[in-house]
Amino acid sequence: MTPPSEFPSADGLWTGLRLAPGAAPGVTLAPDAEAALVVAQGTVRWVGARADLPAEFAGLAPHDGGGALVTPGLVDCHTHLVYGGQRANEFAMRLAGATYEEVAKAGGGIVSSVRATREADEDKLFAQAAARLEQLLADGVCAIEIKSGYGLALEHERKQLRVARRLGEAYGVTVRTTFLGAHALPPEYAGRSGDYIDLVCKEMLPALAAEGLVDAVDVFCERIAFSLAETEQVFQAAKALGLPVKLHAEQLSDMGGAALAARYGALSCDHIEHLSADGIAAMRQSGTVAVLLPGAYYTLRDTHLPPIDALRAAGVPMAVSTDHNPGTSPTLSLLLMVNMACTLFRLTVPEALAGVTVHAARALGLQDTHGAIAPGMPANFVLWNLHDAAELAYWFGQQPVRAVVRQGRIAIGATE
Amino acid sequence: MTPPSEFPSADGLWTGLRLAPGAAPGVTLAPDAEAALVVAQGTVRWVGARADLPAEFAGLAPHDGGGALVTPGLVDCHTHLVYGGQRANEFAMRLAGATYEEVAKAGGGIVSSVRATREADEDKLFAQAAARLEQLLADGVCAIEIKSGYGLALEHERKQLRVARRLGEAYGVTVRTTFLGAHALPPEYAGRSGDYIDLVCKEMLPALAAEGLVDAVDVFCERIAFSLAETEQVFQAAKALGLPVKLHAEQLSDMGGAALAARYGALSCDHIEHLSADGIAAMRQSGTVAVLLPGAYYTLRDTHLPPIDALRAAGVPMAVSTDHNPGTSPTLSLLLMVNMACTLFRLTVPEALAGVTVHAARALGLQDTHGAIAPGMPANFVLWNLHDAAELAYWFGQQPVRAVVRQGRIAIGATE
Ligand SMILES: [Zn+2]
Ligand SMILES: [Zn+2]
Repeated sequence: MTPPSEFPSADGLWTGLRLAPGAAPGVTLAPDAEAALVVAQGTVRWVGARADLPAEFAGLAPHDGGGALVTPGLVDCHTHLVYGGQRANEFAMRLAGATYEEVAKAGGGIVSSVRATREADEDKLFAQAAARLEQLLADGVCAIEIKSGYGLALEHERKQLRVARRLGEAYGVTVRTTFLGAHALPPEYAGRSGDYIDLVCKEMLPALAAEGLVDAVDVFCERIAFSLAETEQVFQAAKALGLPVKLHAEQLSDMGGAALAARYGALSCDHIEHLSADGIAAMRQSGTVAVLLPGAYYTLRDTHLPPIDALRAAGVPMAVSTDHNPGTSPTLSLLLMVNMACTLFRLTVPEALAGVTVHAARALGLQDTHGAIAPGMPANFVLWNLHDAAELAYWFGQQPVRAVVRQGRIAIGATE
Repeated sequence: MTPPSEFPSADGLWTGLRLAPGAAPGVTLAPDAEAALVVAQGTVRWVGARADLPAEFAGLAPHDGGGALVTPGLVDCHTHLVYGGQRANEFAMRLAGATYEEVAKAGGGIVSSVRATREADEDKLFAQAAARLEQLLADGVCAIEIKSGYGLALEHERKQLRVARRLGEAYGVTVRTTFLGAHALPPEYAGRSGDYIDLVCKEMLPALAAEGLVDAVDVFCERIAFSLAETEQVFQAAKALGLPVKLHAEQLSDMGGAALAARYGALSCDHIEHLSADGIAAMRQSGTVAVLLPGAYYTLRDTHLPPIDALRAAGVPMAVSTDHNPGTSPTLSLLLMVNMACTLFRLTVPEALAGVTVHAARALGLQDTHGAIAPGMPANFVLWNLHDAAELAYWFGQQPVRAVVRQGRIAIGATE
């Protein structure tokens, strides 16, 4: 594996590009106009029509895009990427007709991921997650959120978050860590939910935050997980530490989680299939992003669509993410989620593309550094072997990446 | 592009393999047993447990599989891969709320593919289809069916089929051509369906068959396409030429097409969402394969499942394919179809894997050369960066190919 410090610099003048609509704020080009892009010291200096290139940049080191479509680097704003093992066997058993009890007896379900995560050491977790991360990066991902939540004990949550940080360094990709200690009740706390939430708030979160391992705090607020009151307890602990919050909200039922999260200025509410009108209004007021997760909807064969029309009407920004996890969304392609957001959720193509760029960046508080191609922002962009931006959503199961510039360096692909 | 004649030979002794269940007929190994594979002159000579390797093969040129999972090369048995243009703009317009009329006015629908196919010359069609074929091959496809049906006139159908043959030669992949002149009524025959079918049967098919361009004959039998009587007319023309038939049957309604096709000994009936019990019984008797196309089901947001349980109970072999086409299934991954066959159609993992190997080969009459790893068969197999065969179906949007041996040569990946 090449260390990111050895990736070639992307500095210079990029020409032969076709700019996807919405890729560069304030820049609108005719569909067939040649675009150009100037990168200096890893930062975008200028973007626009090649014909308008200021003379001062004309002599810079050339990178020929060969007519490729260019978009901002993709942002995967909701993943559970770091865990031990996988659950393919459980997937196969269910299809073969195994009952819930039989799957559980064979060691299936989330507890199996918790067990495997606890048993694995940091290096093993790193190796397993790295293989998955490489697949996501091959799709043009330049920033990714990684949650804890399969350790469910201080040392194991720490392991997950440390691996997340190491992945960011090893691959030269922006990683935002989210502490999700309140993901599920660990078996040893069965029947003692309150005690576990106390542990999360008073011991786990403060310790991990002090180690610099926590960029945000998340809770799974659901009848089968944690209550609204428990969620608020975690939010208060986060607030006390000055950490932003997010929420797994209204996936299976309307718990009122979104409105609560909005009151705490949440970065995002995620899933939200059962989000109410009140929840939408609260999210709009607080500027909270709605994160849509079509991979889980697809895998669970859910039929209850998130309230897309109402979110659109309210102007709530919608992001789209993989929700990569071993149980309900073992997907390894954010681009496939763009197609699923269109096909299953009926997002328009521009909405789906904004969902994996500008709005996804905002769901991570990264709107100043990711999700757009703009002067002053770090160079994170993708060249695609495609003609129209709509093709990013139209083909599915595709591998159209030509080159990826990540944090100012050419991480994938080469130019002449 | 490397010409296939320059791909390295796969001859020698392959070790360090893990054999997927069902990959080699008659060979059953413990899940963790090391498998070995002997290739001589492009043909599989021996497959089994490494521990059982006959001494005579021990000294052959070594290929280390590095612990990879091995399956037969995949077979994509139903595609419309060769066409002009693409329809991403139509996809985007529909999502943005355009009416059917607006899409048609903007040049959308199948007529737009017919127009673009007719306008393109052979080289242009080749280049466009080659880009798509490369994506399918990256998934481990070693044999593929390609239908005509966007030309709808002798010279243009010929162009499509010639491109299909050229693709096979250029990439060293087995291509089976299917003449689908009876795909749709061309605009110039509006209201004269009978005349067009006469043309298909009396001019187009005999001419193209005489040129060696037709391996099988297919019809789109549906209320919106051709009637049962017209379908039989085409089948009779095929029979007179000694060509096997296939059928796009019962996708939108029960037309009785499957039973008719079975009477003509059809290789396969495809789509079959509305297949009746009589149709199933007829297919069982004739040994016709049921080809399932989850990509179209997904894209059309269909809710009427094919009668999987009844097909399973009757013992009708089920294949799974991409149905790659620009309108209703613009997918570029057969592996994704394996996941969709499981997730959407509830096939078991072994069924889905048989569906893209042994049963798909049979749907093309290729059961003696594709779909299995067996002594005497050409070497077509795939090494995967996976541990369990179930992972082929479980992850989705993945790119797990480590190496592909196609027609006895290492087409993708390298070994030490
Ligand atoms: Zn999640
Ligand atoms: Zn078809």
